[in-house]
Amino acid sequence: MHAYRSHTCAELTKSNVGDSVRLSGWVHRIRDHGGVLFIDLRDHYGMTQVLCDPDSAVFSEVEKLRSEWCIRIDGEVKARDESLVNPKIPTGEIEVFIRDVEVLGSAKELPLIVFGDQEYPEETRLRYRYLDLRREAMQENMKLRSDVVASIRRRMWDIGFREYQTPIITASSPEGARDFLVPSRLHPGKFYALPQAPQQFKQLIMVSGFDKYFQIAPCFRDEDPRADRSPTDFYQLDMEMSFVEQQDVFDTIQPVIKGLFEEFGGGKAVDEEWEQISYRDAALWYGTDKPDLRNPIKMQDVSEHFRGSGFAIFAKLLEQDGTEIRAIPAPTGGSRKFCDRMNAFAQKEGLPGMGYIFWRDQGDGMEAAGPLAKNIGPERTEAIREQLGLGVGDAAFFLGGKPAAFERVAGKARVTIGEELGLTDENRFAFAWIVDFPMYEADEESGEIDFSHNPFSMPQGGIEALEGDPLKVLGYQYDLSCNGYELVSGAIRNHKLETMIKAFELAGYDEAEVRKRFGGMVGAFQYGAPPHGGCAAGIDRIVMLLADEQNIREVIMFPMNQRAEDLMMNAPSEPASDQLMELGLRVLPREE
Amino acid sequence: MHAYRSHTCAELTKSNVGDSVRLSGWVHRIRDHGGVLFIDLRDHYGMTQVLCDPDSAVFSEVEKLRSEWCIRIDGEVKARDESLVNPKIPTGEIEVFIRDVEVLGSAKELPLIVFGDQEYPEETRLRYRYLDLRREAMQENMKLRSDVVASIRRRMWDIGFREYQTPIITASSPEGARDFLVPSRLHPGKFYALPQAPQQFKQLIMVSGFDKYFQIAPCFRDEDPRADRSPTDFYQLDMEMSFVEQQDVFDTIQPVIKGLFEEFGGGKAVDEEWEQISYRDAALWYGTDKPDLRNPIKMQDVSEHFRGSGFAIFAKLLEQDGTEIRAIPAPTGGSRKFCDRMNAFAQKEGLPGMGYIFWRDQGDGMEAAGPLAKNIGPERTEAIREQLGLGVGDAAFFLGGKPAAFERVAGKARVTIGEELGLTDENRFAFAWIVDFPMYEADEESGEIDFSHNPFSMPQGGIEALEGDPLKVLGYQYDLSCNGYELVSGAIRNHKLETMIKAFELAGYDEAEVRKRFGGMVGAFQYGAPPHGGCAAGIDRIVMLLADEQNIREVIMFPMNQRAEDLMMNAPSEPASDQLMELGLRVLPREE
Repeated sequence: MHAYRSHTCAELTKSNVGDSVRLSGWVHRIRDHGGVLFIDLRDHYGMTQVLCDPDSAVFSEVEKLRSEWCIRIDGEVKARDESLVNPKIPTGEIEVFIRDVEVLGSAKELPLIVFGDQEYPEETRLRYRYLDLRREAMQENMKLRSDVVASIRRRMWDIGFREYQTPIITASSPEGARDFLVPSRLHPGKFYALPQAPQQFKQLIMVSGFDKYFQIAPCFRDEDPRADRSPTDFYQLDMEMSFVEQQDVFDTIQPVIKGLFEEFGGGKAVDEEWEQISYRDAALWYGTDKPDLRNPIKMQDVSEHFRGSGFAIFAKLLEQDGTEIRAIPAPTGGSRKFCDRMNAFAQKEGLPGMGYIFWRDQGDGMEAAGPLAKNIGPERTEAIREQLGLGVGDAAFFLGGKPAAFERVAGKARVTIGEELGLTDENRFAFAWIVDFPMYEADEESGEIDFSHNPFSMPQGGIEALEGDPLKVLGYQYDLSCNGYELVSGAIRNHKLETMIKAFELAGYDEAEVRKRFGGMVGAFQYGAPPHGGCAAGIDRIVMLLADEQNIREVIMFPMNQRAEDLMMNAPSEPASDQLMELGLRVLPREE
Repeated sequence: MHAYRSHTCAELTKSNVGDSVRLSGWVHRIRDHGGVLFIDLRDHYGMTQVLCDPDSAVFSEVEKLRSEWCIRIDGEVKARDESLVNPKIPTGEIEVFIRDVEVLGSAKELPLIVFGDQEYPEETRLRYRYLDLRREAMQENMKLRSDVVASIRRRMWDIGFREYQTPIITASSPEGARDFLVPSRLHPGKFYALPQAPQQFKQLIMVSGFDKYFQIAPCFRDEDPRADRSPTDFYQLDMEMSFVEQQDVFDTIQPVIKGLFEEFGGGKAVDEEWEQISYRDAALWYGTDKPDLRNPIKMQDVSEHFRGSGFAIFAKLLEQDGTEIRAIPAPTGGSRKFCDRMNAFAQKEGLPGMGYIFWRDQGDGMEAAGPLAKNIGPERTEAIREQLGLGVGDAAFFLGGKPAAFERVAGKARVTIGEELGLTDENRFAFAWIVDFPMYEADEESGEIDFSHNPFSMPQGGIEALEGDPLKVLGYQYDLSCNGYELVSGAIRNHKLETMIKAFELAGYDEAEVRKRFGGMVGAFQYGAPPHGGCAAGIDRIVMLLADEQNIREVIMFPMNQRAEDLMMNAPSEPASDQLMELGLRVLPREE
C-alpha cells in the first residue's frame, strides 16, 4: 500500500464499504459523541469522516490529536446509518473506522482557525498565510485563479497565439509609474529595472516578425499603497498582433474575455454585444471612462432647457464658456426623501448640491415637484421630462458648471442612484469598449501638454493630425470596461518613427530625449516595422470580479500587505554589508 | 478588404489562381530577371513570390524596395509555369502579380542579413535582435520554445496539477548563489530579493494544503559569466506534491518529460525505461553525476588485478588508503595510435597519463599489447579482459589514485572515447535518475561540513541518521540526467522541524540562525506540515537540447550578453539621482 494514502479524502463512497483504506490529511474538526471521537479529515480534495471508539488500540493516540495536525490513518470503510448520511459531501455515505494512526506533522496552538468563517485581521492572515490558505474560501479562490489563467492560455493558443517570455531584469520602461531598480554587481553604480509592463518588448517582438504574441506577464510598479492594487506587482494578459487595425484587436480578444466570463462567471449573464462608446460620450453619459453598464442610467445634456430660464443659478452659469447642465435620470426615484438624500450625497462630495425634479401623481394628473420645477416653469419642466423619458414616480437630478469640475461626482451619483433604487443588475457582466481617447491632456495648473494615456499609440489621422491643436488629437487607444472596472487597455501602436518623434515633441520631449529613453524601439523602427497593436488585461482584477471579491489580496497566493511588506518571509529586510559592498552601494543615514 | 492582408504569406495555392489578394510582409530577397522584379515576400507563416514587370503602373515604386522593408501589396494570383513550381514551399505553385504596393515600414542599410546562414558576431546579433530574430532558425527556435512550454503546461494540467504563481519581489532565498537585491522605497535601507527559485514558496504551498503545484517559474541568480547559462535569470518547470515518496515523484514527472521529448525530439529515440543509478555508482561508472548514457562505456573497478602486480606504479598506489584503479573499456579502440591519443588527452587534462592495454589479432590468437600488459603478465591481463568483456580490436584505459582526484578526467575521457569511436548514439535521448546523493560534503581544504545539494532535503533514515558520520548520510535527493546534462533536480523535503534543525546544525548553522534565515518555513513547519517533495526542470536547457543548439542564447528571445548587459535596451544603466535619493542610496565612488 502507498505510504500515505490509498484514496484522497473526497473519493470514498458506498462502493468502498468493507475496504481497508489509508488516508492522509488534516484534522479539520474533532467531536466527542459519547466517548467516540469523530474527526473530519480534510485534504485538498475534500473531507472524510473518520472515527475511533474507546475500545480501539489507538484510541489514546487519537485522543491527542488537535485541529490542523497532519495525520495518516488506516481503517475500514463502513456505511453510515441512513439517518446520518450527509448528502452535501461526496463521502457523506460512509465513515472510516480508524485502525492505525500516524502523526505526520503536529501543530502548535493555532493563531487562526481554519474551519468556519471567523474573520481575522489582515496582519494575522498574511503572517500565517499557510493557515489562512487552508480555509475553504481561499482554496477555492486560488483554484479559480489557476483555472482562469489556464483557460486564458488555452483560448489564446486556440486562436493562433504563442506565448513568448520577455525579460524581467531589464531597462526602465516608461509606463508612468516608478520603476523598481536592481543594482548590478558586474557593473557597479549601474542599475537594471523590473519592467512596468512588457510594452516595448512586445512591440519589438512584432518588429521581429512574430505576428501574434501573448504572455501572462508579471508587471512591476513601485506604487504608493492603495486598497485595490498590489503595491509591488501584478499580472496581465499581454497581447500584440501585427498587421491589424483597432477592430481586429477587438474581434480577437472579445471572444476570449467573453468565453472566460461565461466559463467562470457563476451563471451571471454576460453581454452578447459589446458597445463601443467614445471617451467623450462615456464622460457625458456616465461621468467616467469605466462605466458600470449594469446600471441603465444614462446622463444627458439638458443645457438648452435652462438657458435663460427662471432658475438663475443655472441660467447665469450657462453664460460662461464651456459650461453645461447635465441631468441624471432616476427612474423610480420620485420621492422627496430620496431626492434630498441624493442632494446631501452631492454636498458630501464637495458640490453645492444637486437640483432635482420629481414627478408624482396628483389624482387628476402628473405633478412635477421640487424647487427647480417651480423656477423654470411647467413648459421647460415638461420638455426635460420628455427628453429624459421619465414619468410618474421618477426623478431627475441636475448638475451644472464646467463638466470637468462635476463629472466625477455625477458619475458617483449615477452609481449610487442605480444601487439605491435597485436599478443595477447584480447578476450581469456588462462590457463596453471605450474608444477615441484623447492623445494629450493639459495640466490643470501649468497648462503643459502631456500624454493622457500611452505615449506609444498611433494618433488618429497620423502625422498630419499632429499639426493642429494637440488637445483635439484622438488616439487609436481603447479600454474595456466591465461593471465599473477597467479590465483591458490597449492601442494601435505608432510604428512610424517620424510620427513617434513628432508625437513626443508635442508632449515636450525632443528627439534626442526620445532616442535616449527609447533607444531600443527607435532603433527597431528604422528596420521595417510592421503596423501593430494589442492590449493588456488585468488578471488579478478579472479573477477578483469572477470570485466576487472586493480585495485583490483575496486572489493572490502570497500578497504583500499595503505597506509592501511580506510578513511571513520578512521582506524587505536589511542587507548584509558585504552584499552592499559588492554592489558598490551605501545606505544613506535617515533623517528623522 | 482588410487593411493589410486577405491571406498570410503561406496560404495561397493553386485554388486561389485568379483571385485578387492582399498580402503584407517583409521583402526577403529581390531578384531582377530580365527587367521583371521577383520578390520573396515573407511573413511569420511563410513566403510568397510576388512580381512586377516594367509595364506595371507601380513598377517605379517596387524598384525602390529593399530587403526587410515591410510592405503591403495587392495583386492577382497566377499559376506558375510547370517548370517554375517550387515544391519546397506551400505557395510554390503560384505567384502574385503586383497591382498596388504600400510601404508600411522602410529600412535603413542592414547591419545583419536576414536570409541565408551568414554568421555574425554575438554583439551584432544581440544589438539588432529584432533583425536576428527574423531569421528562419531563430523563428523556429522561439516557436519551439513556446510550444514546449505550452505542452508542459497541458501535460501538467492533464495529471491534476494547477499552476500557482509565487512572488517575484520577495526575501532572499538561500539556493547557494548570489541574490539580486531590490531596494525598497517605502522602507529606505531595506531590500527585497528576487527569488533564486520558488523553493520555500512551493513548500509553503504544500503546507497550505494545495497537494499539487507547478509553475513555469522565472529564477534569478546573480551569476558570474559562463557560456551555458544566462548571467541573470532562467526558467524552470517547478513542481511539488504532498503525501509522496521519491518514486511517486519519478512516476509523475517521467511521463511528462518523456512525452515532451517524444513530441519535440525530431524523431530521435527516447528511452522507454529510465534506470536509477546511485550517485556512487554514477561516479564509478561514468565519472560524473550527469552521465551521457548514449555512450555505452561503463567504467569498472579493476583494483584487484593490479594489487601486488608487476606494474609497480599501480601496485604502490593501492597500498594507500582510499585508492582504486579504474578501467575505461574502449570497444573498437584497439590501436596504438588511438591509445596514444587518449593518453595525451589525459595528460592535457593534468593527469600523468592513462595506462592502456589493447587487444589485437596475432594470426594464431589474440595478443594483449601495451606496456601495462607486459608488466602485469598474461594471466592478470586476461582476467581484466574477461571482466571488461573485451576482445580483439578493443582497448582499455586505466586510471589510479584517489577517485576524487581522477574521476572528473575519467568521465571526460569516457565521453571523448565514446565520441571518437562513434560509440555514442547521436540519435537518442538517454535518461537516468541519479539517486542517493550524499547530504553533506567536506570542504577539501578546511574539512568543514556543508550541504552538498539542497539543504531542505529529507535525510534517508530521518533524524536518527543524523547522529552518525555526516558524510555517510544520504538524502532523498535526485537528479535526472539526459545526454550528459542535468535536466531535473529534486528531493523529498525535510518537513519535520526537529530534523531540519538537526540537519542544519551538522552543517554549522545553529537553531537561531535557521530560525532567522528561514523564518517563514520554520513557522509553517510548526502547524501541521505534510510530507512533500518535488523537483524542478530547466526549461532553457530542455529547449536547447530539443533545438539541438549549443548555446542557451539561441533559445531565449532577448538574452543578456555574457557581461549581463542588454545591448538593445541599454541595461544596466546609470540611475537618475532622484531615483537614488528616493531609495536612500548612494553609489560609492569606484576605486580604479
